Amino acid sequence: MHMSGKVRVAVAGASGYAGGEMLRLLLGHPDVEIGALTGGSNAGEKLGVLQPHLVPLADRVLEATTPEILAGHDVVFLGLPHGQSAAIANALGDDTVVIDCGADFRLTDPGEWEKFYGGVHAGSWPYGLPELPGLRVQLQGAKRIAVPGCYPTISTLTLAPAVAAGLITPDVVVVAASGTSGAGKALKANLLGSEVMGNVSAYGVGGVHRHTPEITQNLSLLTDGEIKVSFTPLLVPMPRGILATCSAPIARKVTAEEAYEVYAAAYADEPFVTVLPQGMWPQTKSVLGSNSVHLQVTVDQTAGRLVAVGAIDNLAKGTGGAAVQCMNLALGLPESTGLTTIGLAP
Amino acid sequence: MHMSGKVRVAVAGASGYAGGEMLRLLLGHPDVEIGALTGGSNAGEKLGVLQPHLVPLADRVLEATTPEILAGHDVVFLGLPHGQSAAIANALGDDTVVIDCGADFRLTDPGEWEKFYGGVHAGSWPYGLPELPGLRVQLQGAKRIAVPGCYPTISTLTLAPAVAAGLITPDVVVVAASGTSGAGKALKANLLGSEVMGNVSAYGVGGVHRHTPEITQNLSLLTDGEIKVSFTPLLVPMPRGILATCSAPIARKVTAEEAYEVYAAAYADEPFVTVLPQGMWPQTKSVLGSNSVHLQVTVDQTAGRLVAVGAIDNLAKGTGGAAVQCMNLALGLPESTGLTTIGLAP
Amino acid sequence: MHMSGKVRVAVAGASGYAGGEMLRLLLGHPDVEIGALTGGSNAGEKLGVLQPHLVPLADRVLEATTPEILAGHDVVFLGLPHGQSAAIANALGDDTVVIDCGADFRLTDPGEWEKFYGGVHAGSWPYGLPELPGLRVQLQGAKRIAVPGCYPTISTLTLAPAVAAGLITPDVVVVAASGTSGAGKALKANLLGSEVMGNVSAYGVGGVHRHTPEITQNLSLLTDGEIKVSFTPLLVPMPRGILATCSAPIARKVTAEEAYEVYAAAYADEPFVTVLPQGMWPQTKSVLGSNSVHLQVTVDQTAGRLVAVGAIDNLAKGTGGAAVQCMNLALGLPESTGLTTIGLAP
Amino acid sequence: MHMSGKVRVAVAGASGYAGGEMLRLLLGHPDVEIGALTGGSNAGEKLGVLQPHLVPLADRVLEATTPEILAGHDVVFLGLPHGQSAAIANALGDDTVVIDCGADFRLTDPGEWEKFYGGVHAGSWPYGLPELPGLRVQLQGAKRIAVPGCYPTISTLTLAPAVAAGLITPDVVVVAASGTSGAGKALKANLLGSEVMGNVSAYGVGGVHRHTPEITQNLSLLTDGEIKVSFTPLLVPMPRGILATCSAPIARKVTAEEAYEVYAAAYADEPFVTVLPQGMWPQTKSVLGSNSVHLQVTVDQTAGRLVAVGAIDNLAKGTGGAAVQCMNLALGLPESTGLTTIGLAP
Repeated sequence: MHMSGKVRVAVAGASGYAGGEMLRLLLGHPDVEIGALTGGSNAGEKLGVLQPHLVPLADRVLEATTPEILAGHDVVFLGLPHGQSAAIANALGDDTVVIDCGADFRLTDPGEWEKFYGGVHAGSWPYGLPELPGLRVQLQGAKRIAVPGCYPTISTLTLAPAVAAGLITPDVVVVAASGTSGAGKALKANLLGSEVMGNVSAYGVGGVHRHTPEITQNLSLLTDGEIKVSFTPLLVPMPRGILATCSAPIARKVTAEEAYEVYAAAYADEPFVTVLPQGMWPQTKSVLGSNSVHLQVTVDQTAGRLVAVGAIDNLAKGTGGAAVQCMNLALGLPESTGLTTIGLAP
Repeated sequence: MHMSGKVRVAVAGASGYAGGEMLRLLLGHPDVEIGALTGGSNAGEKLGVLQPHLVPLADRVLEATTPEILAGHDVVFLGLPHGQSAAIANALGDDTVVIDCGADFRLTDPGEWEKFYGGVHAGSWPYGLPELPGLRVQLQGAKRIAVPGCYPTISTLTLAPAVAAGLITPDVVVVAASGTSGAGKALKANLLGSEVMGNVSAYGVGGVHRHTPEITQNLSLLTDGEIKVSFTPLLVPMPRGILATCSAPIARKVTAEEAYEVYAAAYADEPFVTVLPQGMWPQTKSVLGSNSVHLQVTVDQTAGRLVAVGAIDNLAKGTGGAAVQCMNLALGLPESTGLTTIGLAP
Repeated sequence: MHMSGKVRVAVAGASGYAGGEMLRLLLGHPDVEIGALTGGSNAGEKLGVLQPHLVPLADRVLEATTPEILAGHDVVFLGLPHGQSAAIANALGDDTVVIDCGADFRLTDPGEWEKFYGGVHAGSWPYGLPELPGLRVQLQGAKRIAVPGCYPTISTLTLAPAVAAGLITPDVVVVAASGTSGAGKALKANLLGSEVMGNVSAYGVGGVHRHTPEITQNLSLLTDGEIKVSFTPLLVPMPRGILATCSAPIARKVTAEEAYEVYAAAYADEPFVTVLPQGMWPQTKSVLGSNSVHLQVTVDQTAGRLVAVGAIDNLAKGTGGAAVQCMNLALGLPESTGLTTIGLAP
Repeated sequence: MHMSGKVRVAVAGASGYAGGEMLRLLLGHPDVEIGALTGGSNAGEKLGVLQPHLVPLADRVLEATTPEILAGHDVVFLGLPHGQSAAIANALGDDTVVIDCGADFRLTDPGEWEKFYGGVHAGSWPYGLPELPGLRVQLQGAKRIAVPGCYPTISTLTLAPAVAAGLITPDVVVVAASGTSGAGKALKANLLGSEVMGNVSAYGVGGVHRHTPEITQNLSLLTDGEIKVSFTPLLVPMPRGILATCSAPIARKVTAEEAYEVYAAAYADEPFVTVLPQGMWPQTKSVLGSNSVHLQVTVDQTAGRLVAVGAIDNLAKGTGGAAVQCMNLALGLPESTGLTTIGLAP
């Protein structure tokens, strides 16, 4: 730690949405001091112009994203395009905690990496979803952490108790509606406000979205059964939030009450997961800006399926909040430090 | 027909969203003359205050919704709350074509009616989805027509070719994202702009939404197999539009190409259904205000599911446009008169 | 006209928002046949991919924007970036009606052109705002027409009766809230959906927006007094629509009733302008997709100002609808052909 | 203070938007303990159902809004309909700090009260806008505080430096675009999501909005000149935020630079007010959920007007954040405790 007694952190990719969200949360973290901020083509510009909501950092100038600039921090957060994290991480010593919001180190199977991302697999790091059984302990004291993708986070948490308890045959269907910030700040015509407002569209349909194998990998940790995942993402007209509607055939007779109790028990001790009162269904607005996960579950006896719905803020618990939560675990700080369960509604 | 040579129509429920949309379309219909407009608690008010977008009818005053007021028209459109259509329809003679946008006459099975709507089943009328094999002929010259629900319209059309061709086991999962006008003008807190903007929520989860048995009924016309429907509606922050994401296990080996060809062939002669070029996925904005249905289909070989996505405007093809299309069939007019395939984008 | 008896039209810039809107309207125009469609970098692509809402033109391929391609049509619509219209127009003979949606030929004063746009002034064409006293006659039979800017259209129409009647000192303040399509399909970070949703911002503040001198020029036609225009545009989270709030000091004692009557009288014969019933204020949704202008006016006696509010659809009456209206006038067709006063609400 | 050493607070009107926002902020306030929560017709219901985003209070049950329930707290926040605060406040002793988010005690002039609100004037309390010269000291240690209206807060702060420095003739024009939460949770048809999405409308036009005299009253504190305020509110499609565009004739020759320096100097020591770098204009998203005020100013030399634009979150700095800021001042806590300057973007 720094002489100030504070953890000194750097953020690479500070001009993007993931970087901005990490900074928003880190500014409210009592144990953190913000060091280097780096950008790509934006290096040299003031953060106040690029991220005007981060008032206390308005006069900070973005530096280049190099190992030299990022060295000398206790924690380095990476919010970089896919494929750029490995080189940076390798150049940083093991005395630096590196937390990667990109995909480079999430998948354990090189074949899946190659199939969905192409190129050489960089390896895998401890996976930053502490709510998944067995993972929290791997994150405590970890020096390298891969923050999960936003869709895998909510899809996994929405299905995990049902899979783990054997309530369902793990042949799951996930339709997840996401706000546009999940696509980043990329200048693409289909992301223009004129295109997305008043519009819902599907994309990456048919099992081709890169988050599909990550969901499969997560659920595989919970059962010996063969996992099948049909995943369809939707783009909906809001900046933030994901609502995942998940279902699967019930594996045995189970009532809605039983399913609810399984979920309530599974997450009873999780600080960020709320199984809503029965009958209330999640909405993304309730978790806006927070690290909360809101869940509900029921059983459709006619269709023979368990249906569960989950909501997160894709930038918070889905990216930046998870990154801070992981940092807390890595450093031995209380897991919730600097994070809130309270959403910004309405 | 009227002395003018025009069809004289009345609209009951002219102050609601369904009524407003029927009037918007009927004003552009070259063969129609608009007669009585009725309301409930709004009777006595000017339409210009209630529906300011309907400029040519601004000075029209809403009358009470009674058989006497509605009598003497060639066609009466009903946009009334559930349960109110039967009494009106019974009082109108068989020389009047009655087109009901409510649910009262959609279901053929009294048991399903009772289970989902409660009360006594009023019977069933010819079902206004001419794109479903065998139904168009029933609508030609019909005196009573039940306009389908918005969700059943798009869910059925998105799945029908796959079911009819036996590509899938008809154990289907439908997740349909709808704009808020589908819920009508009801004054409910969860429909306030402050609640719905920036928000996606699920509702009617677990097979309890009233449109579920209607989807089942429709798909049953296409196969002898047992239909199972898992239906989850989502409320998304836009006024109009539905995007339905539908999937089911493939029943035999089938490629995406084959599935596409089945869909293209099934709808080749349908004036309002467009199967998009392969690789393009539907978006609601493309069909805004139009009677178009946009579809796409693929096969996820890893998950073993066919996935199809469809988009309509819930108020147009999902309600008012379908009503006009049905009127055209009932009266022997060209089916597309007064309707467009062109959406209002961006 | 063409052998078919139809007017043969070409649209340059068919992949943009202005081009798309003109095509949407022209497809519904009974006297028009659509000829060449041209693009810039999109030349060679299918329109179905670029403008999926224009179903009947899905298979059309965009050609290059050259005089050769555009020659041989009765009417050529230009939806091009500023500065590109003159070369095209000069190469087209006087037997072709050229209707320019760009700014190149709107301003009459070369000094203002230079100040706000830079470069050489190309000259000025008849100005396509037939509702302004004296302008309709100039458009009848015209061979070259400059379609007004969207902000000038609504600002001018909202203020014109008050200026012409001398109710106000023409020292006007206009604050106009616009949907994002007014900025075109340009790939700019501030136009991304993630940025504009849930957000209102001001831009071009302090008299620097290019539409400012155009408003001044228009109001100057109505009075000998010195015109001052303070114009501030706002970007609001919707795809289409402009609401202009306009005010100025009253020049003499005038009641709200009197002001209303002046407005009602001024537009009594205008097919597209509706002065709403007193007490009702315009909203953009009522005019969505239509050629309507909705207006209201009152007098704030305490502040000593007349306040008028106007709404249009920036792409329809603000661009593409005005272009079609101008074509009708140029060709001697009924002015409203192919246009509607009915908005798409809700 | 309470035995815990914490300030014990009650919130009346906890189910509304103002109440919910106060609770969101108070939950993050390190010196506060949340006591009684009361509602109107919602009394008896759980807060988790009414405000699902307030996770830590989910099991709290709303009580009736009576002096007995509210007694015994250090601070009572009132988020009640107009006219209900006086009776409650009078029944609470002077050992309780009462902070009223309603309008009852804002206006000092009984005549203005009667004209705009009707009924008997209840009196006036110290006005909770510490950034206005001279007001902070009145709030320190105060026992009764009237939280300003949301529009007056941003309109006043956007104009104050120019008025105080005599840069403008105080004949001001304010057009303020507000998100829908400013209208509260009232079940009105024009506030339905279907109505407000994709729509901008004006309301309360012509000097009749109740916040008009409050703006006048505030600016009168800064000049001896006669204040004239032309105020027009707009409803825009977003849940939160206000952008106020303000202008007035310049009173003397002044450059944009000079005006900027006047603004920068005026707010140099204010913890929540940021005058953005020159050339950057405010946007509401940058202040979302924060207590920040973002401002910019320029001079339009052609129109002879100073134009300033300001942004706040109407529920935060515009209501709940101001209430917490006022509590801090009343109790002698650091003014920024529990508040942030960092907005939630994108």
